[in-house]
Amino acid sequence: VTAASGPPASDHLRRLLYRADGAVTGDMPVEVVIPDTAEDVAEAVRNATAAGLSIVPRGAGTGLSGGASPLGRAAVVSLMRLDRILDVDPDNRTALVEPGVRNLELSRHTRADGLMFGPDPSSQSTCTIGGNIATNAGGPRCYAVGSTTSHVLAATVVLGDGSTVEVGADYADPIGLDTRAVVVGSEGTVGLVVRALVKLSPVSEATRTVLCAFARLQQAGDATARIVRSGVNATSIELMDRTTIAICENFTQAGLPLEAEAMLLCEVEGTDLTIGEELADLERLASEAGAYLVQVAESEEQATLWWRARKGAFGAVAQLASNYHLHDGVVPRTRLVEALERVQEIGRRSGTLIRLVAHAGDGNLHPLIPYDGSDPEQSERVHAVSEQIMDVCLEMGGAVSGEHGVGVSKVHLMDRVFSAVDLEYQGHIRCAFDPDAVMNPRKVLPSPPSCAERIVPLDSEMWV
Amino acid sequence: VTAASGPPASDHLRRLLYRADGAVTGDMPVEVVIPDTAEDVAEAVRNATAAGLSIVPRGAGTGLSGGASPLGRAAVVSLMRLDRILDVDPDNRTALVEPGVRNLELSRHTRADGLMFGPDPSSQSTCTIGGNIATNAGGPRCYAVGSTTSHVLAATVVLGDGSTVEVGADYADPIGLDTRAVVVGSEGTVGLVVRALVKLSPVSEATRTVLCAFARLQQAGDATARIVRSGVNATSIELMDRTTIAICENFTQAGLPLEAEAMLLCEVEGTDLTIGEELADLERLASEAGAYLVQVAESEEQATLWWRARKGAFGAVAQLASNYHLHDGVVPRTRLVEALERVQEIGRRSGTLIRLVAHAGDGNLHPLIPYDGSDPEQSERVHAVSEQIMDVCLEMGGAVSGEHGVGVSKVHLMDRVFSAVDLEYQGHIRCAFDPDAVMNPRKVLPSPPSCAERIVPLDSEMWV
Repeated sequence: VTAASGPPASDHLRRLLYRADGAVTGDMPVEVVIPDTAEDVAEAVRNATAAGLSIVPRGAGTGLSGGASPLGRAAVVSLMRLDRILDVDPDNRTALVEPGVRNLELSRHTRADGLMFGPDPSSQSTCTIGGNIATNAGGPRCYAVGSTTSHVLAATVVLGDGSTVEVGADYADPIGLDTRAVVVGSEGTVGLVVRALVKLSPVSEATRTVLCAFARLQQAGDATARIVRSGVNATSIELMDRTTIAICENFTQAGLPLEAEAMLLCEVEGTDLTIGEELADLERLASEAGAYLVQVAESEEQATLWWRARKGAFGAVAQLASNYHLHDGVVPRTRLVEALERVQEIGRRSGTLIRLVAHAGDGNLHPLIPYDGSDPEQSERVHAVSEQIMDVCLEMGGAVSGEHGVGVSKVHLMDRVFSAVDLEYQGHIRCAFDPDAVMNPRKVLPSPPSCAERIVPLDSEMWV
Repeated sequence: VTAASGPPASDHLRRLLYRADGAVTGDMPVEVVIPDTAEDVAEAVRNATAAGLSIVPRGAGTGLSGGASPLGRAAVVSLMRLDRILDVDPDNRTALVEPGVRNLELSRHTRADGLMFGPDPSSQSTCTIGGNIATNAGGPRCYAVGSTTSHVLAATVVLGDGSTVEVGADYADPIGLDTRAVVVGSEGTVGLVVRALVKLSPVSEATRTVLCAFARLQQAGDATARIVRSGVNATSIELMDRTTIAICENFTQAGLPLEAEAMLLCEVEGTDLTIGEELADLERLASEAGAYLVQVAESEEQATLWWRARKGAFGAVAQLASNYHLHDGVVPRTRLVEALERVQEIGRRSGTLIRLVAHAGDGNLHPLIPYDGSDPEQSERVHAVSEQIMDVCLEMGGAVSGEHGVGVSKVHLMDRVFSAVDLEYQGHIRCAFDPDAVMNPRKVLPSPPSCAERIVPLDSEMWV
């Protein structure tokens, strides 16, 4: 493959490495291409499709839904070598980046200008802006700042025929039909983002991390509701239950309250003058909800350690067993505790240990189920439990969240969030960009009808 | 037309009234339908297309780009009778509304719950949520909160064949392909929004309005840059030049500084404790930039009066002459003053009075040119000046803004913001939703190729 400057893609070990993302093992890729430039990406796409292969894009491979896992005869196109921060414009608060730039690296780079990239997935030290765009990634702060789609102004996208299209406009809110928003969250099914203009957000003058411990899960939910309604400038409200606290503490020795039934980890922002009032308000609200402990991090080190404990929850669970199943459901914020209690009940009834983590501020729950994937009985039980949890979210008027992507592992749930007609129009859009269905096929949307069935009738003269 | 409960649509006066929006006169509509329910909207669409008519949706008709102005043989479908606020959910901060609900009416309704709808177009007392969605409307506060697309979670949309599709999901960030974002800003070319679930934003505990007056335009631009960079919680930064100040003062007697070369009207938000510091910061920054007057509104009445003056600028200009031309260009925020100075220069050279209003915070300029449309010489000169202004914006790396919609009056500029390929993909999306090209044809996108040319090749078996 001439487009790749790396070693030959036929290398077995490399193909093995690119067979799975963080959780889902796919088919062995026919080839792996690691281009250096946008032009090489386009050439790699042309070469691969000419060879009859489909295209599976890959960033850091931290996804957990199989978006980057190959299916069928596929070429994996890694975008990790397109890793330059091309421009930072502090006055207009934008950065022009290549897709392989790591999330945290961008925020570190712009910190000197008092700016940061808003979304902060737990994998932010590893995951890339391209991957964030592909999955419309969230993170603790997204409760306050919205998911990735609110932070992307424009992008350059390589399509399945190797051509390039620009979506969005540099200094304007979207005008025309918002092709930019179609690309964000499409997990490579529309095209490969090879350059993006992203918004940067101001870093607050003062930021504090607060740990609130509760004897009952219900109290943590109540505190969340009070904080959200109060107008306290909490930019993150993260919930962990007793079992998750235990493994995270064991993993990081961060000093988490092992005796608590639930805890909230909150980030509060303000100015040096206002932060005291914000903290006092938060403390009062948490106490009113029944917190027996409200502790403000005494140093940046302590705050960092607490956040490392929270953001390391998946890693900590991963150490418990050979496999783990991650849910990514969302319910109306007001019904979060009810949802979590029902998930706990499902765990008790089925004899399955379910560890609860949630972006409480936006009703996004992440139950984690460690299990031994080599044991068919365990795998089957976890699968059944998983379906029950998703039923709970959907019954409560919630949805499958897209925070970790739909990929392949949640694609069968899409027709419970959307009607057949709603999905059909999503499929129409996909066909418009990828008529030959070569871009990450069988991801995101459930078994779409053939693009050929979507031929437009010939009596459409009104356009001309 | 049986779907409409109103009087017969053949009524000449009514058709005359629905021939134009706030600025652009189109063709006489063949009929005007004013349905009462979503079902009636679908039936009206079916009846009209069966009669060979295209569909032109209309809200309050406050648009200024001709989005609601009929072209060719069209039925205007007014959505003003679908005007119910169906539900307000304060805990989840959402409202379910019909499209005919007026913008300000929604914010007034939710104010008791401490909530408001974020976007605040100057026409907010009249314009509707449906119109805001159609044009992806902005407003002074959109500098801080983003345009309408950031405030719409989901919508029910009637398509050109009378069928209904749901876009977006109620409690999740967009998942799948973001059809929701495609509908927002599509000005009815995708379908008619008959119901929308919108986000509500918290009303700040303390809000103050500040008027800053400057002897030079450059200083107002400098103050804007300082305020934006400082992190002061200014949620609106509006700029008016001397000529606009004069007519607005004449119109409202708000006590504006007639001797100033430029003024900024800013809204600052915070809590009762913090608002003092925010105001002190703003005052210092404006003074450092050279403001000779910084005045905080002494009462809510005074603030309301100042805002009425600003938001009435278009109305004030409209009183000066039989017609006025409104620009809606956007430039990188840092180049706003340069752009305004070049616009002033264009006015001087051509002997045209151009009045400057701008959403300074986000680089969105609204030069206003009053003229007598019955005078061909004047009309031609205004048209030429208008093209020169748009050239300035585009040369400076800016764009046509979509804040007031693209409609018909800016459609010829789209190919200067987007390449032919970029526009082609926007056209693909449009065709996917409206294959028969009956939905507001010739709006938003420049002369697209026939949908029939977009037939997908038959070799697309990979989908199945």
